[in-house]
Amino acid sequence: MFTNLEHLGFAVTNLEAATDLYTTLLGVAPYKMEHVASEAVDTVFFKVGGSKIELLAGTSPDSAITKFLAKKPEGIHHVAFEVDDIRAEMARLKTEGFVLLNEKPKRGADNKLVCFVHPKSAAGVLVELCQTIHP
Amino acid sequence: MFTNLEHLGFAVTNLEAATDLYTTLLGVAPYKMEHVASEAVDTVFFKVGGSKIELLAGTSPDSAITKFLAKKPEGIHHVAFEVDDIRAEMARLKTEGFVLLNEKPKRGADNKLVCFVHPKSAAGVLVELCQTIHP
Repeated sequence: MFTNLEHLGFAVTNLEAATDLYTTLLGVAPYKMEHVASEAVDTVFFKVGGSKIELLAGTSPDSAITKFLAKKPEGIHHVAFEVDDIRAEMARLKTEGFVLLNEKPKRGADNKLVCFVHPKSAAGVLVELCQTIHP
Repeated sequence: MFTNLEHLGFAVTNLEAATDLYTTLLGVAPYKMEHVASEAVDTVFFKVGGSKIELLAGTSPDSAITKFLAKKPEGIHHVAFEVDDIRAEMARLKTEGFVLLNEKPKRGADNKLVCFVHPKSAAGVLVELCQTIHP
């Protein structure tokens, strides 16, 4: 089950400038910065109500964010929904014909297991499923 | 104050097909369809947790959605934050140098007063402020 619009990911070219901008726009300071080595991204998180805004800057030419920004201007990169059972949702969506970008849940930022759905499957939107890892 | 990630707007070319697709993807049926004459759009709303997904299809060549889809593929169009006082937030953001697309709050879908911030002000993201109209 999809339980929450967990976060939105914004691809940015200058993380420091974008952090200042969103601190002013949202009227709230970021609560976390995190480097995600597996994705080659630096991230900055803001909380707004029950959701988060995640700023994403690539840290290598291989980063999905660097590749995205080579083709498109900065802006919204993906939308992430919290799910209660990521493996069950991945199986359900695969059966329904959605193309998943990873076959198994992978470790993402913010202590989550994540899976991405190909935007060609979802009317042009890069959709992430995420589930918090409980220790 | 920004109190919630109220909704995400997705620009779609075929509202019926996108409604079917998101009903399957999100695992929930839409709760509302609404024609917004002032914006020349048909909308379909889904609830996920405390936020909404709004599918948007233009109903005339003058619609912002029709113009968006003439230049870009379908995908995420805007992100809307609920604010507690839209006039106060508009004044604050104007003072901070953000470019607002409307000088006064205007009536939007879903019984809201809305104001858009120019994406050039917000790192490429079209940001909507919205406040529920209480009778």
